[in-house]
Amino acid sequence: MDIVLLGSGNVATNLALALKTAGYNIVQVFSPNLVNAKELAKKVNSDPINNFSEIDRAADLYIIAVKDDAIAEVARHLKHVDGLVVHTSGTTDIKVLSSEVGSAGVFYPLQTFSKSKAVDFKTIPICLEASDPHQLKLLTQLAEKLSGKVYVMDGAKRKVLHLAAVFACNFTNHLYALSNQILTKNDLDFELIRPLIAETTDKVMADLPENVQTGPAVRHDESTMNKHLAMLSSLPELQEIYQTLSNSIKLAHK
Amino acid sequence: MDIVLLGSGNVATNLALALKTAGYNIVQVFSPNLVNAKELAKKVNSDPINNFSEIDRAADLYIIAVKDDAIAEVARHLKHVDGLVVHTSGTTDIKVLSSEVGSAGVFYPLQTFSKSKAVDFKTIPICLEASDPHQLKLLTQLAEKLSGKVYVMDGAKRKVLHLAAVFACNFTNHLYALSNQILTKNDLDFELIRPLIAETTDKVMADLPENVQTGPAVRHDESTMNKHLAMLSSLPELQEIYQTLSNSIKLAHK
Repeated sequence: MDIVLLGSGNVATNLALALKTAGYNIVQVFSPNLVNAKELAKKVNSDPINNFSEIDRAADLYIIAVKDDAIAEVARHLKHVDGLVVHTSGTTDIKVLSSEVGSAGVFYPLQTFSKSKAVDFKTIPICLEASDPHQLKLLTQLAEKLSGKVYVMDGAKRKVLHLAAVFACNFTNHLYALSNQILTKNDLDFELIRPLIAETTDKVMADLPENVQTGPAVRHDESTMNKHLAMLSSLPELQEIYQTLSNSIKLAHK
Repeated sequence: MDIVLLGSGNVATNLALALKTAGYNIVQVFSPNLVNAKELAKKVNSDPINNFSEIDRAADLYIIAVKDDAIAEVARHLKHVDGLVVHTSGTTDIKVLSSEVGSAGVFYPLQTFSKSKAVDFKTIPICLEASDPHQLKLLTQLAEKLSGKVYVMDGAKRKVLHLAAVFACNFTNHLYALSNQILTKNDLDFELIRPLIAETTDKVMADLPENVQTGPAVRHDESTMNKHLAMLSSLPELQEIYQTLSNSIKLAHK
C-alpha cells in the first residue's frame, strides 16, 4: 500500500512515524516548504516534494494533515487521483473532500501532538469515516495496525469529540500555564505543582471527574474563594476565570 | 514520637496511612463523629475519640486535619497541651493556631486526596512552617520520613501555592467534568478522551505548559472557535467558559 502524506506539522510527523513503524510505505511527503518536507521525509525514507504537480497519482491513500482551513485547497490538487483521500481534522466535514475528490474519508486521531515528543499510537482513539464501504474497510484495516482503539464515527459525533477535547486538553493546558504564571510571579517553581497535576489526571483514569472534584468551590467555601479573588486583584483576567469556573463548579455541585 | 490526629477526612486518612507506614505511632484519632473516628483509627491501630476532654495531653505532635473554618475551634481545645500543634491547610495562617496554643506549625501536603485512592506520599511536596526553630527541625525530620520533597515556606508563599493548585487541579478536574458533560449529552463515552488527558499531563511533566499549548485558540482559528460556540448554544454556561478561556489563550499567545 503506497501512501502520500500531505503536511509536515505535528499530526503529519507523528502519523508518519507511526505508519513507518507499522510497516507502511510513505512514497511522498508534500509540504509547500521544501525544508519541512525534507525534514520529515528523511525520517520515514520518503521523497520530499513541494509542488502539487509532482504528486504520485498512483498511490492508494492520500493523507491530508494540514491546518483545517488549508484542507480544501490541498484537496483541489487531488481531483485526478484514484486512491482514497482522507483528512485528519476533528472539525472538518468529509464534504470538504468529497466535493473535490472521487473517494473521500476521515482519519482523525484524538490526541495532542508535538513534533518534539513522539506518542504511542497504540492507545490513541482513531475515528474513521469514508464515503464508500469498501474504502472504509481499507481505512479500518490500516487504523487497526496503528491503534487498538478504532471507531467508525460520523462527522457530527467527531465534531462533538473535538469540542470535548478542547475542554479536556487545550483549556486544561492553559490552566496549567495560568497556574505557572501565579507561581513564577511569586518566585515559586512549576515543579512544585507537577505531582498534583499528575495525581489530578490519575484520578480520572479510573473514575469520572464529577465524582472526584475537590477544592473550595465544591465545598462552597466562600471565605477561601474571597481570599483567592483578593490575591488575584492585580490580575483581573485570572480573577474573571477564577470566578467563572468557581461558579460553574458550585452550580454542578449544589 | 506520639501523634494525635484530629480529623477523619481525605487529608487525615491519607496522612494517617503514610505516618503509619513510616513507623509513627498515632495514639488517638479524633472526630466529632465517632463512627468516622473509629473507621480511620482501625486502619492505623489507634484509639478513636469524639470528645475533646479525652485528648491525650502528653503527645508530641497534634495534627489538625479538618476543614479550614473548623481549625480555630479545634485549636481552642488544645490550649493546654505541651506538644507541637500543626494544621494541614494551604490557606490558613499559622496565627490561627499560635493565638491559641503554645507551639504552632503548618504541615501542608500539596496534593489532592481522596479516601478511596491512597497516594504515594514520597513524591508529594510538603510545605512546613513553625513558630520556633526547634519545632521546625522536629517537623522537618518527620516530613522527610514521608516525602523526598520537603520545603520550609512562609504563609504568604504557601497561600500562593494553594491558589496555583486551584487552577492546576480543581479547575482542571472541572474542565474534565464539562468535557464529559458534552460527551454524555451526545452518547459518547469519557473513555474516548482519557488517552488525550493522560498525554496533556504527560507533556507538562518535562516541559512548561506555555510551550506546548495546542488547539484553535492558540492558532487564532476563529472559524473553528465560532463553530464550537454554535455547538454550545444550548449550554450558555459552557459557552461563557469557552469564550473566557479562549480569549485568555489568545491573549497569552498574541
